[in-house]
Amino acid sequence: MPYNKALVEALAEMIGKKHPGPIRTAYLNANQPQIPDGLKSFAGTNVHSIVALPLFLAHGVHTTEDIPRELGIARGESRGSINLDGREVEILCAQPLGVDECIATLAYQRAVESLK
Amino acid sequence: MPYNKALVEALAEMIGKKHPGPIRTAYLNANQPQIPDGLKSFAGTNVHSIVALPLFLAHGVHTTEDIPRELGIARGESRGSINLDGREVEILCAQPLGVDECIATLAYQRAVESLK
Repeated sequence: MPYNKALVEALAEMIGKKHPGPIRTAYLNANQPQIPDGLKSFAGTNVHSIVALPLFLAHGVHTTEDIPRELGIARGESRGSINLDGREVEILCAQPLGVDECIATLAYQRAVESLK
Repeated sequence: MPYNKALVEALAEMIGKKHPGPIRTAYLNANQPQIPDGLKSFAGTNVHSIVALPLFLAHGVHTTEDIPRELGIARGESRGSINLDGREVEILCAQPLGVDECIATLAYQRAVESLK
Protein backbone atom coordinates (compact mmCIF):
# COMPACT_ATOMS: atom_id res chain seq x y z
CA MET A 1 0.00 0.00 0.00
CA PRO A 2 1.16 3.60 -0.60
CA TYR A 3 1.24 4.19 3.17
CA ASN A 4 4.18 1.87 3.43
CA LYS A 5 6.33 3.73 0.92
CA ALA A 6 5.43 7.09 2.47
CA LEU A 7 6.44 5.79 5.91
CA VAL A 8 9.77 4.41 4.68
CA GLU A 9 10.64 7.63 2.86
CA ALA A 10 9.67 9.85 5.79
CA LEU A 11 11.76 7.80 8.23
CA ALA A 12 14.71 7.77 5.83
CA GLU A 13 14.48 11.55 5.56
CA MET A 14 14.45 11.88 9.36
CA ILE A 15 17.52 9.67 9.66
CA GLY A 16 19.24 11.58 6.86
CA LYS A 17 18.78 14.89 8.67
CA LYS A 18 20.74 13.60 11.66
CA HIS A 19 23.33 11.35 10.07
CA PRO A 20 25.61 11.76 7.06
CA GLY A 21 24.52 8.75 5.04
CA PRO A 22 24.29 8.32 2.11
CA ILE A 23 20.84 6.83 2.69
CA ARG A 24 18.74 5.07 0.09
CA THR A 25 15.31 3.46 0.27
CA ALA A 26 14.28 0.18 -1.36
CA TYR A 27 11.41 -2.26 -1.16
CA LEU A 28 10.93 -5.98 -1.13
CA ASN A 29 8.06 -5.93 -3.58
CA ALA A 30 5.14 -3.81 -4.77
CA ASN A 31 7.14 -0.56 -4.63
CA GLN A 32 10.15 0.78 -6.51
CA PRO A 33 13.11 0.64 -6.32
CA GLN A 34 13.45 -2.96 -5.30
CA ILE A 35 16.41 -4.10 -3.19
CA PRO A 36 18.94 -5.02 -5.93
CA ASP A 37 18.46 -1.62 -7.59
CA GLY A 38 18.62 0.05 -4.19
CA LEU A 39 22.04 -1.52 -3.64
CA LYS A 40 23.27 -0.45 -7.07
CA SER A 41 22.15 3.11 -6.34
CA PHE A 42 25.13 3.41 -3.95
CA ALA A 43 27.46 3.38 -6.98
CA GLY A 44 29.56 6.53 -7.03
CA THR A 45 29.13 7.21 -3.31
CA ASN A 46 32.43 5.61 -2.28
CA VAL A 47 30.81 3.70 0.61
CA HIS A 48 32.65 0.73 2.09
CA SER A 49 29.66 -0.85 3.85
CA ILE A 50 25.93 -0.80 3.28
CA VAL A 51 23.62 -1.55 6.21
CA ALA A 52 20.13 -2.66 5.25
CA LEU A 53 17.62 -1.59 7.86
CA PRO A 54 14.39 -3.60 7.61
CA LEU A 55 11.48 -1.42 8.75
CA PHE A 56 9.61 -4.15 10.57
CA LEU A 57 8.62 -4.36 14.20
CA ALA A 58 9.42 -8.05 14.58
CA HIS A 59 11.18 -10.82 12.72
CA GLY A 60 9.12 -12.72 10.19
CA VAL A 61 9.70 -14.42 6.88
CA HIS A 62 10.53 -11.07 5.23
CA THR A 63 13.36 -10.33 7.66
CA THR A 64 14.69 -13.87 8.06
CA GLU A 65 14.51 -15.00 4.44
CA ASP A 66 13.30 -12.58 1.78
CA ILE A 67 15.38 -9.51 2.60
CA PRO A 68 18.67 -11.38 3.22
CA ARG A 69 18.15 -13.25 -0.05
CA GLU A 70 17.61 -10.01 -2.00
CA LEU A 71 20.69 -8.53 -0.32
CA GLY A 72 22.77 -11.52 -1.39
CA ILE A 73 23.42 -12.62 2.20
CA ALA A 74 23.60 -16.41 2.21
CA ARG A 75 21.50 -18.41 4.66
CA GLY A 76 23.32 -18.63 7.99
CA GLU A 77 25.65 -15.76 7.11
CA SER A 78 25.49 -12.28 8.62
CA ARG A 79 27.25 -10.45 5.80
CA GLY A 80 27.32 -10.32 2.05
CA SER A 81 29.02 -8.16 -0.53
CA ILE A 82 28.37 -6.45 -3.81
CA ASN A 83 30.73 -5.13 -6.45
CA LEU A 84 30.30 -1.39 -6.87
CA ASP A 85 32.62 0.81 -8.93
CA GLY A 86 35.02 -2.09 -9.31
CA ARG A 87 35.47 -2.92 -5.63
CA GLU A 88 33.79 -5.09 -3.01
CA VAL A 89 31.33 -3.31 -0.72
CA GLU A 90 30.22 -5.11 2.45
CA ILE A 91 26.49 -5.62 3.00
CA LEU A 92 24.99 -6.02 6.48
CA CYS A 93 21.41 -6.45 7.58
CA ALA A 94 20.18 -4.88 10.84
CA GLN A 95 17.68 -6.42 13.23
CA PRO A 96 14.06 -5.28 13.06
CA LEU A 97 12.96 -2.48 15.41
CA GLY A 98 11.86 -4.90 18.12
CA VAL A 99 10.85 -4.18 21.68
CA ASP A 100 11.79 -0.75 22.95
CA GLU A 101 10.30 1.66 25.44
CA CYS A 102 9.86 4.27 22.71
CA ILE A 103 7.55 1.96 20.75
CA ALA A 104 5.42 1.36 23.85
CA THR A 105 5.24 5.11 24.50
CA LEU A 106 4.29 5.87 20.89
CA ALA A 107 1.68 3.08 20.87
CA TYR A 108 0.06 4.47 24.01
CA GLN A 109 0.06 7.94 22.46
CA ARG A 110 -1.82 6.57 19.43
CA ALA A 111 -4.40 5.02 21.78
CA VAL A 112 -4.92 8.34 23.58
CA GLU A 113 -5.27 10.17 20.25
CA SER A 114 -8.05 7.82 19.16
CA LEU A 115 -10.14 8.88 22.18
CA LYS A 116 -10.18 12.55 21.13
CA MET B 1 5.82 -16.24 13.79
CA PRO B 2 6.48 -16.50 17.55
CA TYR B 3 8.51 -13.27 17.39
CA ASN B 4 5.34 -11.36 16.73
CA LYS B 5 3.52 -12.62 19.81
CA ALA B 6 6.58 -12.03 21.99
CA LEU B 7 6.83 -8.45 20.72
CA VAL B 8 3.16 -7.72 21.33
CA GLU B 9 3.27 -9.14 24.85
CA ALA B 10 6.46 -7.31 25.77
CA LEU B 11 5.08 -3.98 24.54
CA ALA B 12 1.77 -4.57 26.36
CA GLU B 13 3.72 -5.25 29.55
CA MET B 14 5.69 -2.02 29.12
CA ILE B 15 2.49 -0.03 28.62
CA GLY B 16 0.87 -1.77 31.60
CA LYS B 17 3.72 -0.72 33.88
CA LYS B 18 3.06 2.95 33.15
CA HIS B 19 -0.71 3.06 32.73
CA PRO B 20 -3.57 1.57 34.73
CA GLY B 21 -5.23 -0.44 31.97
CA PRO B 22 -6.67 -3.05 32.04
CA ILE B 23 -4.62 -4.13 29.01
CA ARG B 24 -5.21 -7.27 26.99
CA THR B 25 -3.44 -8.67 23.93
CA ALA B 26 -5.10 -10.29 20.93
CA TYR B 27 -4.13 -11.34 17.43
CA LEU B 28 -5.62 -11.22 13.99
CA ASN B 29 -4.66 -14.78 13.13
CA ALA B 30 -2.05 -17.45 13.81
CA ASN B 31 -1.83 -16.62 17.53
CA GLN B 32 -4.25 -16.86 20.45
CA PRO B 33 -6.37 -15.21 21.68
CA GLN B 34 -7.94 -13.82 18.55
CA ILE B 35 -9.64 -10.43 18.57
CA PRO B 36 -13.24 -11.45 19.49
CA ASP B 37 -11.97 -13.43 22.49
CA GLY B 38 -9.65 -10.56 23.37
CA LEU B 39 -12.65 -8.23 23.54
CA LYS B 40 -14.64 -10.68 25.67
CA SER B 41 -11.71 -10.92 28.09
CA PHE B 42 -12.60 -7.42 29.32
CA ALA B 43 -15.74 -8.86 30.94
CA GLY B 44 -15.73 -8.13 34.65
CA THR B 45 -13.29 -5.20 34.35
CA ASN B 46 -16.01 -2.52 34.35
CA VAL B 47 -14.41 -0.67 31.41
CA HIS B 48 -16.54 1.80 29.45
CA SER B 49 -14.32 1.97 26.36
CA ILE B 50 -11.86 -0.40 24.73
CA VAL B 51 -9.17 1.04 22.46
CA ALA B 52 -7.64 -1.43 20.02
CA LEU B 53 -4.05 -0.55 19.27
CA PRO B 54 -2.80 -2.17 16.06
CA LEU B 55 0.92 -2.84 16.36
CA PHE B 56 1.78 -1.97 12.79
CA LEU B 57 4.12 0.69 11.46
CA ALA B 58 1.85 1.75 8.60
CA HIS B 59 -1.67 1.28 7.38
CA GLY B 60 -2.33 -1.76 5.24
CA VAL B 61 -5.16 -4.19 4.67
CA HIS B 62 -4.86 -5.49 8.25
CA THR B 63 -5.40 -2.05 9.78
CA THR B 64 -7.95 -0.72 7.27
CA GLU B 65 -10.10 -3.83 6.88
CA ASP B 66 -9.26 -6.95 8.89
CA ILE B 67 -8.86 -5.47 12.36
CA PRO B 68 -11.91 -3.13 12.21
CA ARG B 69 -14.00 -6.05 10.93
CA GLU B 70 -12.91 -8.28 13.83
CA LEU B 71 -13.60 -5.43 16.25
CA GLY B 72 -17.12 -5.05 14.86
CA ILE B 73 -16.44 -1.53 13.55
CA ALA B 74 -18.48 -1.10 10.38
CA ARG B 75 -16.80 0.15 7.20
CA GLY B 76 -16.66 3.94 7.26
CA GLU B 77 -17.33 4.10 11.01
CA SER B 78 -14.76 5.02 13.64
CA ARG B 79 -16.44 3.30 16.58
CA GLY B 80 -18.21 0.10 17.41
CA SER B 81 -19.58 -1.47 20.55
CA ILE B 82 -19.80 -4.79 22.33
CA ASN B 83 -22.11 -6.01 25.06
CA LEU B 84 -20.13 -6.92 28.17
CA ASP B 85 -21.68 -7.74 31.53
CA GLY B 86 -25.06 -6.61 30.23
CA ARG B 87 -24.05 -3.14 29.04
CA GLU B 88 -22.66 -1.53 25.91
CA VAL B 89 -18.91 -0.93 25.85
CA GLU B 90 -17.52 1.41 23.20
CA ILE B 91 -14.79 0.07 20.90
CA LEU B 92 -12.27 2.36 19.21
CA CYS B 93 -9.36 1.56 16.94
CA ALA B 94 -6.15 3.60 17.10
CA GLN B 95 -3.97 4.55 14.16
CA PRO B 96 -0.84 2.50 13.46
CA LEU B 97 2.47 3.73 14.92
CA GLY B 98 3.33 5.74 11.82
CA VAL B 99 6.12 8.24 11.31
CA ASP B 100 7.73 9.49 14.48
CA GLU B 101 11.20 10.69 15.39
CA CYS B 102 11.53 7.86 17.94
CA ILE B 103 11.13 5.25 15.21
CA ALA B 104 13.84 6.91 13.12
CA THR B 105 16.14 7.03 16.14
CA LEU B 106 15.52 3.39 17.02
CA ALA B 107 16.01 2.32 13.40
CA TYR B 108 19.37 4.09 13.24
CA GLN B 109 20.35 2.44 16.52
CA ARG B 110 19.62 -0.99 15.01
CA ALA B 111 21.82 -0.10 12.02
CA VAL B 112 24.70 0.90 14.31
CA GLU B 113 24.30 -2.31 16.34
CA SER B 114 24.64 -4.42 13.20
CA LEU B 115 28.11 -2.96 12.57
CA LYS B 116 29.47 -4.21 15.90
